[in-house]
Amino acid sequence: MPKIVDHEARRKELAEAAWRVIRREGLEGASVRNVAKEAGMSLGSLRHYFATQSELLAFSMRMVGERVKERIKKLEMTGDIRADFERIIEETLPLDDERVSESIVWLGFVGKALVDESLGELAAEIHEALYGLFRKLADALIRFGSCRPDADAELEARRLHALVDGLVVHALTNPRSVDPDTIRRTIAYHLSGLMPERSDAQDKRPGNDRSGI
Amino acid sequence: MPKIVDHEARRKELAEAAWRVIRREGLEGASVRNVAKEAGMSLGSLRHYFATQSELLAFSMRMVGERVKERIKKLEMTGDIRADFERIIEETLPLDDERVSESIVWLGFVGKALVDESLGELAAEIHEALYGLFRKLADALIRFGSCRPDADAELEARRLHALVDGLVVHALTNPRSVDPDTIRRTIAYHLSGLMPERSDAQDKRPGNDRSGI
Repeated sequence: MPKIVDHEARRKELAEAAWRVIRREGLEGASVRNVAKEAGMSLGSLRHYFATQSELLAFSMRMVGERVKERIKKLEMTGDIRADFERIIEETLPLDDERVSESIVWLGFVGKALVDESLGELAAEIHEALYGLFRKLADALIRFGSCRPDADAELEARRLHALVDGLVVHALTNPRSVDPDTIRRTIAYHLSGLMPERSDAQDKRPGNDRSGI
Repeated sequence: MPKIVDHEARRKELAEAAWRVIRREGLEGASVRNVAKEAGMSLGSLRHYFATQSELLAFSMRMVGERVKERIKKLEMTGDIRADFERIIEETLPLDDERVSESIVWLGFVGKALVDESLGELAAEIHEALYGLFRKLADALIRFGSCRPDADAELEARRLHALVDGLVVHALTNPRSVDPDTIRRTIAYHLSGLMPERSDAQDKRPGNDRSGI
């Protein structure tokens, strides 16, 4: 019988090995050679899955996107739009070790995409996916009743997206000042300026999913 | 007579050569060897000024910080706090070629600082300098009368800082979606949510510097 290899599982293992190397040595250290070594695989075998470092990095970045999406999908919405928004947004922020690793891959990826044209399309795709998530939140915010009479869904989404990505950069580069508690307080402060306080009437509507997300 | 060399000017020339290389090839291309070539200098001469790539990068990053600071210092304040805030914030955003180059150096620097401990202190210093600027704006905002009854200077400064750095990343990595016009509209939208509309009375107070910046 031929040996059965689960190619997709192997690719994921390699991407995870790449994450460990990126986290330890930065993107410069994440050569195909180093990643093969980290994964205990020969360079030739690795090249069967990823011909170049850019392909490996692109796959790693896609995995980050998938993971964030999966976690958000699994969240159980409470119907309290403010709390639900916070939980969704927190899935995109480096608040634990797993999400710190994802954020490091993302920051390495965007830095590399600046100079590697082959990554430009994926960089735009990742950007638009996250913008799309925040745009849905902004649309829900406006349906729910924003605090601002001049609320604009595009600009709310743009600034939430920038706020989140900025906090990611700050948390990674200056964790002493921007620790998880500061990140949470900043997001909570932002959201409390966007939404009216919950009224009792809203609390009492049973099973009311106001967010529509 | 001994040959007089203006060491500081030479260091600046080298940092500018490094910028050009970083912009063209990314941080990975900005080896001391490549920068020496770009500056038309021998590797030995360059090493007289910068022993390592990290020293060169740190100097380049300090230069970015100095330039932003100088431009803000030179701005003539109008006394219209909203317009003045916009102009100050715009000096930190990649709205023209010069500021795009600065932003690329910054993004390369923060990526490198993640894995090069020798840059960690400077990364924190740069972060705190920009946070300090935004904290001054937030303090002035609260003195002037924020729209929010629960306004908090620290959190206003943190989110403005994150918003700006997030927009920098977006402008560099996805310029089709986040172009200068979108950046300006996002900042204007953010500021219009923070400040009450100007009243005629405020306009008429002559030479009134409300910002105190």
